Amino acid sequence: MFNSQDATYMARALALAARGRFTVSPNPAVGCVLVKDNQIVGEGYHQQAGGPHAEVFALRQAAEATKGATAYVTLEPCSHYGRTPPCAQALIDAGVVRVVVASEDANPQVSGSGLRMLHAAGIDANAGLMTAESVAINRGFMHRMQTGRPFVTLKLAATLDGRTALANGQSQWITGPAARRDVQHHRALSCAILSGADTVLVDNASLNVRWQELPTQAQADYANAISDQSKCPRVRQPLRVIIDTRNRLTPSLKLFSVPGPILLVRGQVTGGFTDQVEECVLPLRANHQLDLTALLTELGRRQINALWVEAGARLGGALLEEELIDELVLYQAPKLMGSSARGLFDVPERIAMSEVTQLQWQDCRHIGNDIKLTATFVKNES
Amino acid sequence: MFNSQDATYMARALALAARGRFTVSPNPAVGCVLVKDNQIVGEGYHQQAGGPHAEVFALRQAAEATKGATAYVTLEPCSHYGRTPPCAQALIDAGVVRVVVASEDANPQVSGSGLRMLHAAGIDANAGLMTAESVAINRGFMHRMQTGRPFVTLKLAATLDGRTALANGQSQWITGPAARRDVQHHRALSCAILSGADTVLVDNASLNVRWQELPTQAQADYANAISDQSKCPRVRQPLRVIIDTRNRLTPSLKLFSVPGPILLVRGQVTGGFTDQVEECVLPLRANHQLDLTALLTELGRRQINALWVEAGARLGGALLEEELIDELVLYQAPKLMGSSARGLFDVPERIAMSEVTQLQWQDCRHIGNDIKLTATFVKNES
Repeated sequence: MFNSQDATYMARALALAARGRFTVSPNPAVGCVLVKDNQIVGEGYHQQAGGPHAEVFALRQAAEATKGATAYVTLEPCSHYGRTPPCAQALIDAGVVRVVVASEDANPQVSGSGLRMLHAAGIDANAGLMTAESVAINRGFMHRMQTGRPFVTLKLAATLDGRTALANGQSQWITGPAARRDVQHHRALSCAILSGADTVLVDNASLNVRWQELPTQAQADYANAISDQSKCPRVRQPLRVIIDTRNRLTPSLKLFSVPGPILLVRGQVTGGFTDQVEECVLPLRANHQLDLTALLTELGRRQINALWVEAGARLGGALLEEELIDELVLYQAPKLMGSSARGLFDVPERIAMSEVTQLQWQDCRHIGNDIKLTATFVKNES
Repeated sequence: MFNSQDATYMARALALAARGRFTVSPNPAVGCVLVKDNQIVGEGYHQQAGGPHAEVFALRQAAEATKGATAYVTLEPCSHYGRTPPCAQALIDAGVVRVVVASEDANPQVSGSGLRMLHAAGIDANAGLMTAESVAINRGFMHRMQTGRPFVTLKLAATLDGRTALANGQSQWITGPAARRDVQHHRALSCAILSGADTVLVDNASLNVRWQELPTQAQADYANAISDQSKCPRVRQPLRVIIDTRNRLTPSLKLFSVPGPILLVRGQVTGGFTDQVEECVLPLRANHQLDLTALLTELGRRQINALWVEAGARLGGALLEEELIDELVLYQAPKLMGSSARGLFDVPERIAMSEVTQLQWQDCRHIGNDIKLTATFVKNES
């Protein structure tokens, strides 16, 4: 069904799709390549919600050459009238004769219907080439479509012996500058950052994306991603979601002095913050702790695809107990603090090995003087 | 001084040297390649203490072709009469005209004098090609020559959050079969294994090398290493050194039922063990804990080059406090136990970040479903 040339062009379409990752949310990242007589005649990617889809950019560039061309699209072309007309129809109208798709859309409004529209017009359209790669680029979007909640990545920074701070709370700095720049990269790729009032108060953290602190390659990718700088701010600031159910945060904190939207989850709404801040009150559980599933469902409702969590052992432990974490990123410094220092997850004591949480390692690599480990949770999604 | 052909032949000599690593202690591993008219005419490696040196194997194989040849030797040829005649003299007698050496000998009896003997005979002899690689193969030997103590590697097995067991002590199994086979490989490469009575009693551990449990590649390397099976047991059992200062071990434990020498460090000598067991009493510190520096000096005196430590948080912490660990090998399972579970190092509380132990990552890799991390200590050797 697919040949090696198909793979070459789809790989190009995937590379184009990836360019949109910094700016495209809440939409998925999509790339498109149009090929005629074994030549690329048009290509494009989706840059931001409300702007043209990848197919539109590619069709515009190809102009008359679209007739008889093959289209490589990383995500199934849409068939519904949303903010833009359906791309499946645009491909039909342009005279494309074959469409190769990486993955079908996870959005129930779209899934399968784009391919059916193409088939109905007599076009040779098939999905399934490099599906895993396309899904990986849009795992946040896919996860939200399937569960109603964002894909949750919990960031951890610890010593070789799994400690986040001395018993007296001192912790600056466990990891080095390269790891901290990598955190900036993850923040830039996320729709929202979740943290707790403790983290904000202890570190006076601003939890924003700082252009100068992004890794050089990320800066280049980011600049590359935005073809029309005037239509897009240089850096998209993720929504900062701070759990402050005891209303401890005050407007004078650094968090509130840097640009970007903030959602404060509070015990009660007090007002007194600048326009960038929205206060909300969410349900508590019987134990007076915030219902984190309700919080994530609310973030899903707000179209947050990828959530990056920077939290302490208490919030991390609570997320773990509610089985809401999809991925862990652990920056591990070559340091030893000893067993009196603070641990990573405050959870009730496990009394049998069968109760131990199981994950799967995905990656290990050196990053500056530290190591970065990535693991995903083994669970059955409903 | 050295060209790319020199590097090719020295790489071969290093590969030969590595074959000896399972059997050669307390001697260093050495390989030798003899080259004439750009052809290898002889090669060999040191297989076991008391047997011929690498140069002797190579010279024997080359026979008449030694005249005018170049010798590549990973360690400076010896110049003293030990259990065998000096190899520097043998090279001179054989008519070798050039000698390329990777590293000078760390043994003060030898260092530099082999090269001087060659120079005095008018031979073009130089050291310094692939020195780091040669030193790495013999780091245990080099360390003992320089400090009088073995090179100490502490093995750790922990969860992603740095835990070795549940609060109630349950821990079997944290890591998977591939990691446990890798431990067998490290044991096989070590001169001695150090552990505590606790570990022996809790796990009824035998702490030996089990041929069937070695990784397939290690079995092949090991078999390859022994050219004359009849002269060498199939598996060298490292000396098992068990700290049992409270005299809790009894002869019925599994430890004593498997072959191989055992050194029991006891509070008092009781007798009642089989011939493979030696009991000894070593000095205690003012706090009634064993003086671990004295223990390692005793092991150095017994010509232990590489010591592999499998211990709990107490012995690990004590070794850390006495700054006796050279390297950590951490097998990290993709599991979470939570902060009530047991930690890696019982040491006094650190109250400032400046007191945190600093290491350097050397390696990270996947091993089965676990990750293996290697780090070395940053310290100034006297």
